[in-house]
Amino acid sequence: MCQLMGMNCNVPTDICFSFEGFRRRGGETDHHADGWGIGFFEGRGCRLFIDWQASTASPIAELVRSYPIKSTNVISHIRKATVGKVSLANTHPFLRELWGQYWLFAHNGDLKTLPALSAERFLPVGDTDSEHAFCWLLEQLSARFPAKPDAATLQTALSELAAELSRHGTLNFLLSNGEWLAAHCATNLHYIVRKAPFGQAHLIDQDISVDFDALTTPNDRVALIATQPLTDNEAWTKMQTGELVVFVDGQPTR
Amino acid sequence: MCQLMGMNCNVPTDICFSFEGFRRRGGETDHHADGWGIGFFEGRGCRLFIDWQASTASPIAELVRSYPIKSTNVISHIRKATVGKVSLANTHPFLRELWGQYWLFAHNGDLKTLPALSAERFLPVGDTDSEHAFCWLLEQLSARFPAKPDAATLQTALSELAAELSRHGTLNFLLSNGEWLAAHCATNLHYIVRKAPFGQAHLIDQDISVDFDALTTPNDRVALIATQPLTDNEAWTKMQTGELVVFVDGQPTR
Repeated sequence: MCQLMGMNCNVPTDICFSFEGFRRRGGETDHHADGWGIGFFEGRGCRLFIDWQASTASPIAELVRSYPIKSTNVISHIRKATVGKVSLANTHPFLRELWGQYWLFAHNGDLKTLPALSAERFLPVGDTDSEHAFCWLLEQLSARFPAKPDAATLQTALSELAAELSRHGTLNFLLSNGEWLAAHCATNLHYIVRKAPFGQAHLIDQDISVDFDALTTPNDRVALIATQPLTDNEAWTKMQTGELVVFVDGQPTR
Repeated sequence: MCQLMGMNCNVPTDICFSFEGFRRRGGETDHHADGWGIGFFEGRGCRLFIDWQASTASPIAELVRSYPIKSTNVISHIRKATVGKVSLANTHPFLRELWGQYWLFAHNGDLKTLPALSAERFLPVGDTDSEHAFCWLLEQLSARFPAKPDAATLQTALSELAAELSRHGTLNFLLSNGEWLAAHCATNLHYIVRKAPFGQAHLIDQDISVDFDALTTPNDRVALIATQPLTDNEAWTKMQTGELVVFVDGQPTR
């Protein structure tokens, strides 16, 4: 299995603090050492860093930890290979373009069967069930909607498709088109919303604290989503099996 | 205008030496300071680093310069914005998936008119003529060939499409699907093939030399393609207007 981390905010925010804890799970505090990746939306653009090395050893992870890239939507993944060998092509998050927007996807879980890809518009490059599932989701969306529908219609479709895809296996995923971030829970996914009054947060995976009050303005709002909570002094909400939450501007909307 | 650099080799090779010189053109030895990017194929996977900062100032460029990522196909671009503002979404190279392969594209030149995109299968995310041209190329290829054709057929189609696209303006580009690297010249594109016996190379943009004989094996072959030559003691071949050269295993094939 793998671990997921996502962030959705109302103002561009860096993820250095959370990533510092999360990356430790890639070989130090946990055993997800078969590659890692992180994607940052900046406006319509998207930066994707992926590496087949463990996140604790990767020079690119060291850059991401120390270089504060500010983003409103971030998806990160550390991999424990189950389906597909350790390689760059099998490293999450995966990136595609649909309706003139980039889409990022990362998955935790195993699909026992794979839904058929009929249109061949989106094809997996690597060998993972996860990339196949992502291609299927986009194929279904593009078949239903030749052009991008309004957000509510799109998110309803996404809920239906996630439920259908869940019949094939365990499906925890994070998905973003740069406007919102959707989190789907099968087994483990937790989130927290940080907003004023901000307090201190202390990492579970490393003895580091941060005082968000000193780093934020009163209007900032940041939602953080992770397979397992990243801090031990904040109240994380555990998502329910089959639940899809769409985060917009740093808060859950449905 | 912008500058392009590409590499195609028969064994995975790092591009640190050439990138050291090339990045200087992003604000030091030349004025292409409106962002930069570099993409590396590793097997079927592709790593893409892009930044809207100048390549001389970017922490990510510093990482790429110092971290020897070994690849058989690399495309890099430094940008002097002409069409489209400075932003991540407008930063080359651009990445898409077709036939289950990643495709990387970078462009130097201006298209005065844009060919129509009818299928809406590939849409630009940013505002550049370059990304639009890339989407058009992929749309045309996918319309001609529902599945990937053999290399000769594909490359013939590519020549025809590049000629058609050239009617719209200035089209120097580099394109790769990870198996080969195609270079199309409108105004400026040069290449060199390094093979045994290897010698010394000295950068134009910085006083640094390297002795490739000490770093290679006798069977290595590396083709380097750039808008302007990167070294001052090697014989670069200037490409002709309208010429498309496809590099495979470190040598021009057509």
